[in-house]
Amino acid sequence: MFSHNVTYVFRPGGVALPDIPVVHRWPEWTLRGISQVVFQNNWLTGLIILGAIFYNSWVYGVACLVGTVTSTVTAVLLKADRNMVKAGLFGFNGALLGIGLNAFMSQNFTNGELPSWRLYLYIVLGAAFTAVVFSALLTAFRPFDIPALTAPFVIAAWLFIFAVVRFAHLPPGPLLTPGLPSPVQGAGDQYTWTTWYQGIGKGVGEIFFQDNWIIGFLIVLGILVNSRISAGMALLGSVLALATAIVLGAPESMVRGGLFGFNAALTAIALGGFFYVLTVRGFLYTIFGILVTTWVWAAISVALSPIGMPAFTSAFVIVTLLMLFAKGFFPGLVPVATEDATTAEDNLARWRRHVEQAEARGPAVG
Amino acid sequence: MFSHNVTYVFRPGGVALPDIPVVHRWPEWTLRGISQVVFQNNWLTGLIILGAIFYNSWVYGVACLVGTVTSTVTAVLLKADRNMVKAGLFGFNGALLGIGLNAFMSQNFTNGELPSWRLYLYIVLGAAFTAVVFSALLTAFRPFDIPALTAPFVIAAWLFIFAVVRFAHLPPGPLLTPGLPSPVQGAGDQYTWTTWYQGIGKGVGEIFFQDNWIIGFLIVLGILVNSRISAGMALLGSVLALATAIVLGAPESMVRGGLFGFNAALTAIALGGFFYVLTVRGFLYTIFGILVTTWVWAAISVALSPIGMPAFTSAFVIVTLLMLFAKGFFPGLVPVATEDATTAEDNLARWRRHVEQAEARGPAVG
Amino acid sequence: MFSHNVTYVFRPGGVALPDIPVVHRWPEWTLRGISQVVFQNNWLTGLIILGAIFYNSWVYGVACLVGTVTSTVTAVLLKADRNMVKAGLFGFNGALLGIGLNAFMSQNFTNGELPSWRLYLYIVLGAAFTAVVFSALLTAFRPFDIPALTAPFVIAAWLFIFAVVRFAHLPPGPLLTPGLPSPVQGAGDQYTWTTWYQGIGKGVGEIFFQDNWIIGFLIVLGILVNSRISAGMALLGSVLALATAIVLGAPESMVRGGLFGFNAALTAIALGGFFYVLTVRGFLYTIFGILVTTWVWAAISVALSPIGMPAFTSAFVIVTLLMLFAKGFFPGLVPVATEDATTAEDNLARWRRHVEQAEARGPAVG
Repeated sequence: MFSHNVTYVFRPGGVALPDIPVVHRWPEWTLRGISQVVFQNNWLTGLIILGAIFYNSWVYGVACLVGTVTSTVTAVLLKADRNMVKAGLFGFNGALLGIGLNAFMSQNFTNGELPSWRLYLYIVLGAAFTAVVFSALLTAFRPFDIPALTAPFVIAAWLFIFAVVRFAHLPPGPLLTPGLPSPVQGAGDQYTWTTWYQGIGKGVGEIFFQDNWIIGFLIVLGILVNSRISAGMALLGSVLALATAIVLGAPESMVRGGLFGFNAALTAIALGGFFYVLTVRGFLYTIFGILVTTWVWAAISVALSPIGMPAFTSAFVIVTLLMLFAKGFFPGLVPVATEDATTAEDNLARWRRHVEQAEARGPAVG
Repeated sequence: MFSHNVTYVFRPGGVALPDIPVVHRWPEWTLRGISQVVFQNNWLTGLIILGAIFYNSWVYGVACLVGTVTSTVTAVLLKADRNMVKAGLFGFNGALLGIGLNAFMSQNFTNGELPSWRLYLYIVLGAAFTAVVFSALLTAFRPFDIPALTAPFVIAAWLFIFAVVRFAHLPPGPLLTPGLPSPVQGAGDQYTWTTWYQGIGKGVGEIFFQDNWIIGFLIVLGILVNSRISAGMALLGSVLALATAIVLGAPESMVRGGLFGFNAALTAIALGGFFYVLTVRGFLYTIFGILVTTWVWAAISVALSPIGMPAFTSAFVIVTLLMLFAKGFFPGLVPVATEDATTAEDNLARWRRHVEQAEARGPAVG
Repeated sequence: MFSHNVTYVFRPGGVALPDIPVVHRWPEWTLRGISQVVFQNNWLTGLIILGAIFYNSWVYGVACLVGTVTSTVTAVLLKADRNMVKAGLFGFNGALLGIGLNAFMSQNFTNGELPSWRLYLYIVLGAAFTAVVFSALLTAFRPFDIPALTAPFVIAAWLFIFAVVRFAHLPPGPLLTPGLPSPVQGAGDQYTWTTWYQGIGKGVGEIFFQDNWIIGFLIVLGILVNSRISAGMALLGSVLALATAIVLGAPESMVRGGLFGFNAALTAIALGGFFYVLTVRGFLYTIFGILVTTWVWAAISVALSPIGMPAFTSAFVIVTLLMLFAKGFFPGLVPVATEDATTAEDNLARWRRHVEQAEARGPAVG
């Protein structure tokens, strides 16, 4: 009703799953929840992504599952709309919160460690809180038909992780180190082919906090199952962000780690065909969004450096929200109503039919 | 009209005050303003709280009075709705701003000092500004029927107190010391019974910046005059926040000082019966809100530590606003329209009558 | 439609420009864009201000032009409303972003240097982004009939300039130095007549980042061409902010540099006759706004000091937005609908006619 993909369609490829009772469809809802992180409503996409995460770290795979299930269960207990639950819309922010808090609280970010019971309870409550924030934001954005994106995850994650330095039993990971920002010195680093292929892969992988370039390409593959355009956009976002960071002289280790890319990849998927039809202007608008997201990630990471906290996907959220909120003023773009946004391909096909029909009727009067 | 308790009902206990001309009712409006800090519209509650503050520090008692009167006068001069003025709705943010700025600008936070004339003028203008922020927020929240809570106080207080380090004639108090956050080390502090009884009392007392555990229990008594549920919730919020902070290993001095509790106590009153009917789900939702508020206070205090500024009641405001904004998505909860919210007891009684009538009519068709 | 001055009236003084084809009117639109920074829709005002900036620094004059044209072109390419484009409404935030980023990234703030090609491209994209943010904010504020002010500039500038410390090829200027805030010590500085006349002039000049007191008075002259009230308000805002800063003991160099004044001057123009009719209460409300803006500038500069970033006109934006959002609650004030706001004089004259007509009809019933 208020958001994208609320209709419960069996996919992929039109092939329905065997007819099983609703009570047993939880695995499907969970997988859809994972796929919604990258704007796909497809359990196979979710399965491939989850598999890729497990391949990198079973700890993060479990965290992803726990997060998705917890936020979905919270919504079910509070009797939220069942179609939204089925489409995985209450799950994707929980998925990110689960992995994200686990990762930044681990001594080893790349592979993670199983949290203490206190920390796991904390993470579970954080995932549950994303369901509340999601509902709150959808309420506030409803008059404008704007989606919440991953803002619920970002807000809940910040509200929870900022606090850990006050608690002896929630020791923060080594990446959470406060310090005043200082400018990069010198003429800039040297970049190699390793920078490129690792940076591009991790630029997608870091969406799910996976510091592993192979996982990134597996995630692209997962998206490809549901939408070629979205898969292409994810890659384009990561590539273009990496190129931009190199042109501007960003530190090589950050570029190779995909840090400039994961927000841009999400912006690319969201603007490139999903919430705007992929017209020529829409494509240029998406390129613009990718560029801006690249340095807005840097901007927010700088703003948070005195408290040593991560930017998460806030850059994607801020830039994409602004570029969506602007839609009413720019008739040169073709926005997609959030409840009609299915896949980039469907959106484009529907719009083409609409234009053809309008042309067949002849020029409008006035 | 747009907020809770705009109807001017003579209380407590249905006993009207003697019939005196409107022009002489200022004392009553002021006392109601003080009671509205804890969501009560009852001059006796206000009187008990004001008395408790004076008992701790006459300086803070005066600041509370000056703040309440100033913000109310501002609203009257700008011809604001008289019923809202009478219910104390323009006063409670001014009350908090008056004490809060006075306290954090004092060399001795616990008892306070009388500010210089420059600082007092500054505080008076801050209290006046809360009336503006209150009206602005109500306007923005009106489409969603959401109250402003103490957000006007928090916003005005931040906008005013951040500035003082730039002015030689507004010397900040010793608590306003900037520093990068650093994690609590070791296995956590030892907590004693003193931690508990002082922490629980101050957890309510710090709502009014009273670093005195006895005052906290007197405030609970003041609330009790108007609503047993709200009094119980204030205590529950303080106790649960303290227990949570101890489980997570927070510094003993902060726990004993009630710092984790005063936001949680307000969240408890707001969600526990006042803006949601106290059903079983509503009660669990309140518990959830109390827990989250506990560490969100820590989160915001960490975020503000590089500039050395206090979090005030921002954690209560953020968590409660999010949990109220979500109401439309969670039919499992029973929200109370802000203009109908009287006391937790009344809300519950009205809802029970409503359910009974619905059952008497038999099951609804469809 | 959604904002002030959308009707395209030829000014100044009712004298139309020669009848030239629309395609050649770009210079006029650009000049109106520059004049809209100070709430005037008058190409002559824009020309005088642009001339004053060129007189101080041709680099900044070029940056102002490039920024205005870029954001306007962006709006035109996205097919934004032509009347809004003609009134310069898509230009003024780009104008500020162009000069602002150029200035803070220069080694010499006062006169500026021509940026590198990378930096210039960055600034151009920043100016383009203001058109997006402007549209997004107008969408969000539309239900309340509230203007975006210079918020699009502030948001875009922050999102862009925070990032530069991460990029070797975008070296920040010397003013962008992070540091924890520390209170002003001692009894306060000595102020001289130089503090006053330079501070007042620069308090207007810094609106356009011009660290030159003569330019400030030239800008007042430019405003005077279109509105005496607005010119007077700009001066009043600067003078009162300077006096306030002195009374509170602000550092002399900051006072002399006009840093406390440029936000207050904008608040004064906006509230003093433009968005509220200049009645007695409206005038007092404006004075209140000027005072609060003075220290809110200081507050935000303190909040940003750990990352060493500038407050820009955020204090004006925050205070004025709050004081405008409150309008529905204060019948003692006379707000002007944003699309009807032409000049302070016109607003006042229309209101007086309205009052006279109402009086001529006799007292209203009820």
